[in-house]
Amino acid sequence: MPRKKEIDETLHHLKIETGDIIKIVQNNKQYEGVLMPHHEFSGDDIITIKLKNGYNLGVAVDEQTKISIVQKQKTLEKQTKKIPVDKDKPTVSIIGTGGTIACYVDYRTGAVHPASSAEELAFSVPEIFDICNVKSQVAYQLLSENITVPHWKTLAELVAKEFNNGATGVIIPHGTDTLGYTAAALSFMLKDLSGPVVLVGAQRSSDRPSSDAAQNLMAAARVAATTDIGEVLVVMHGETSDTYSLIHRGTKVRKLHTSRRDAFKTINDVPLGKVENGVVTLPTSYRKKTKGPVIADTNMEEDVSIVYFYPGLQPEDIPKKKGLIIAGTGLGHVATTLFSQLTTLIKEGTVIVMTSQCLFGRVNMHVYSAGRDLITAGVISGEDMLTETAYIKLMWALAHKKTKKEVELFMTTNQVGEISERTRSDAFQIDQT
Amino acid sequence: MPRKKEIDETLHHLKIETGDIIKIVQNNKQYEGVLMPHHEFSGDDIITIKLKNGYNLGVAVDEQTKISIVQKQKTLEKQTKKIPVDKDKPTVSIIGTGGTIACYVDYRTGAVHPASSAEELAFSVPEIFDICNVKSQVAYQLLSENITVPHWKTLAELVAKEFNNGATGVIIPHGTDTLGYTAAALSFMLKDLSGPVVLVGAQRSSDRPSSDAAQNLMAAARVAATTDIGEVLVVMHGETSDTYSLIHRGTKVRKLHTSRRDAFKTINDVPLGKVENGVVTLPTSYRKKTKGPVIADTNMEEDVSIVYFYPGLQPEDIPKKKGLIIAGTGLGHVATTLFSQLTTLIKEGTVIVMTSQCLFGRVNMHVYSAGRDLITAGVISGEDMLTETAYIKLMWALAHKKTKKEVELFMTTNQVGEISERTRSDAFQIDQT
Repeated sequence: MPRKKEIDETLHHLKIETGDIIKIVQNNKQYEGVLMPHHEFSGDDIITIKLKNGYNLGVAVDEQTKISIVQKQKTLEKQTKKIPVDKDKPTVSIIGTGGTIACYVDYRTGAVHPASSAEELAFSVPEIFDICNVKSQVAYQLLSENITVPHWKTLAELVAKEFNNGATGVIIPHGTDTLGYTAAALSFMLKDLSGPVVLVGAQRSSDRPSSDAAQNLMAAARVAATTDIGEVLVVMHGETSDTYSLIHRGTKVRKLHTSRRDAFKTINDVPLGKVENGVVTLPTSYRKKTKGPVIADTNMEEDVSIVYFYPGLQPEDIPKKKGLIIAGTGLGHVATTLFSQLTTLIKEGTVIVMTSQCLFGRVNMHVYSAGRDLITAGVISGEDMLTETAYIKLMWALAHKKTKKEVELFMTTNQVGEISERTRSDAFQIDQT
Repeated sequence: MPRKKEIDETLHHLKIETGDIIKIVQNNKQYEGVLMPHHEFSGDDIITIKLKNGYNLGVAVDEQTKISIVQKQKTLEKQTKKIPVDKDKPTVSIIGTGGTIACYVDYRTGAVHPASSAEELAFSVPEIFDICNVKSQVAYQLLSENITVPHWKTLAELVAKEFNNGATGVIIPHGTDTLGYTAAALSFMLKDLSGPVVLVGAQRSSDRPSSDAAQNLMAAARVAATTDIGEVLVVMHGETSDTYSLIHRGTKVRKLHTSRRDAFKTINDVPLGKVENGVVTLPTSYRKKTKGPVIADTNMEEDVSIVYFYPGLQPEDIPKKKGLIIAGTGLGHVATTLFSQLTTLIKEGTVIVMTSQCLFGRVNMHVYSAGRDLITAGVISGEDMLTETAYIKLMWALAHKKTKKEVELFMTTNQVGEISERTRSDAFQIDQT
């Protein structure tokens, strides 16, 4: 009985439901406790029960394991929690998209599961009601690696609607994997923001003592409810300890570590500010909020790819698309064996933008003659943009600009903070305060 | 007269050679000085002359510019510099490959050009003779973005030969763009090293006051001549100022900035050591040199690609190869829309290894069920390897291991320092000392 589906069928057959007290007998040992909902973090062959002492126990069940019911749960009336309203407080809209952050602790079992309703989302961190009124909705429930252009469009339209219906700020809990891509997409899609749009994630879920979910969401609420920023932002832990959260510009931020709580870093700039002990500080300049109305301008050309250069990359492995981002080496280089193919693609109408796989620093194709040849061929400089941001920007540009010249001008000109005019000397660091 | 070729033709027509004193008249201004060789960093329409006061002046010439000869250079006898030999000093072999580091300051004009002979290479930093005897050769002269598998093979064979002929250490000056790839390739190709192999580069050429070439080369010589390391290393600036150079393990190092002198960083580990004021310190453990003989085991399967995942990546844009490295998101994820294609490729024999585009941290596909599905499909974890290193390692593995199982075991087991058993908490930083 190795897989979740088979376990589910067995439980169903025995009429066991989440919340029932069950007994598991395995290898002469027996365990008794409340059956918990299956959790994404558990193995597929794991049944989790909450023991009398309050601890959760995961049991790896096999075909020899015997499971029986001890006591059916009392049919609890669905406890209706009411979202409090305080007319003196600003109202923040929360739009759920899935991910580790948007999890809800079940009041019967103490287990964590993805918030599937507006109420569960709002109550995922009830302390938020001290800061603001909350209006919440679930746009979709996705692991962020499955989020694509249509999801960004939906989200941008929901954000605009919430602002235009009076929200002071918008919070978007989001899986961390592609959080940076979504932040960049919303940055280009949303115009005339009348308040901050704060994307927020968690690297550890709420049932773990080390969870960063609560601090990040509270910090996001402070930024959304109390600042005059008119930009798309990302708020995440600044350090591994629970000291402060950083406010990153949506076009300059990137997940730079697979697992650490301070995984998100501003690249090629300093963070916009931070939230510490409930206080928001914003030492650098930012775009101020407008009076609106907020416009969601969401057209995107989806026929765009990212090509990561490596020694040995073959010309035929560069796909033929309307747009290409090439993450080149160093100042923006690729092997000369690819020049002919790039030139052909450009002649056939592909717009090619060069970024650097170095991550930090600026593309400069003027330094070496090979780079100058790329410029002559029509390759556009990605300046100091992140590869991911350049990808999003090119999709937006190709859907909005008519000529190659207009696209080039748009790509090489700062629009929403994605290109720094000058690189700060303190912008090459991971310890960001 | 906008391009280098036309300028060259004009100079040739006027019988002007490098070293001649010439006069340039342009817009009623006139300049007189020694004609310098054309330099990669100069624009294509620039003629550089050395003025009497010693300064170099670049003149942008156009069709109105008049150039005339004032005095032909005296036919200097080719000044023969002799490489000094001190029998009490160790002998280090320098193998030139091109790049900014391997430049030579011309003794007549003071101009910088790529070292094309063994002598020029040796004399690029004459201070090196204080540390060791030098035996030098030029393997090839390439911008590093053009270096591919055959060049790595040549280099590995030359290194083995030099050690087996008695060299104490080997220094490889190399362009910085793909220096990390070459360091990884040599790490897997070279067995039983009887001394250190030190790759070294420069971000600024020797004719610039901010050049890092001399410090890096001197530090490389200290490491090559005086340590008992039996690994492939990279030695580059530790800070932007000329304080110390860092010694990085060849499989763990990456160019992380397009232009800074301290662009090279050890990822997911701490550097092996540093060189400061001529003193080498090695606080961490490393592989000791053997008595040799050094073996160059250079077979590589070249039908391998790197695929960088992004939202919207289409299944048909994943090339069909013998090996694929996928730089996924977060802990090692891709969109579920790609699972079917990956499963098909694996069934057809492609070996797929997952790394993370986060750069820092470790792949862990066990955390989420989508990751576990990838494992079930046969995707191999890249652990905490750099994407670039995993790419090189897979090429080597596919050429040496017979079964998929053997390849998988090889890929997931540390061979030459490319996988850390545990990630150090201080391995997530850019300020490395």
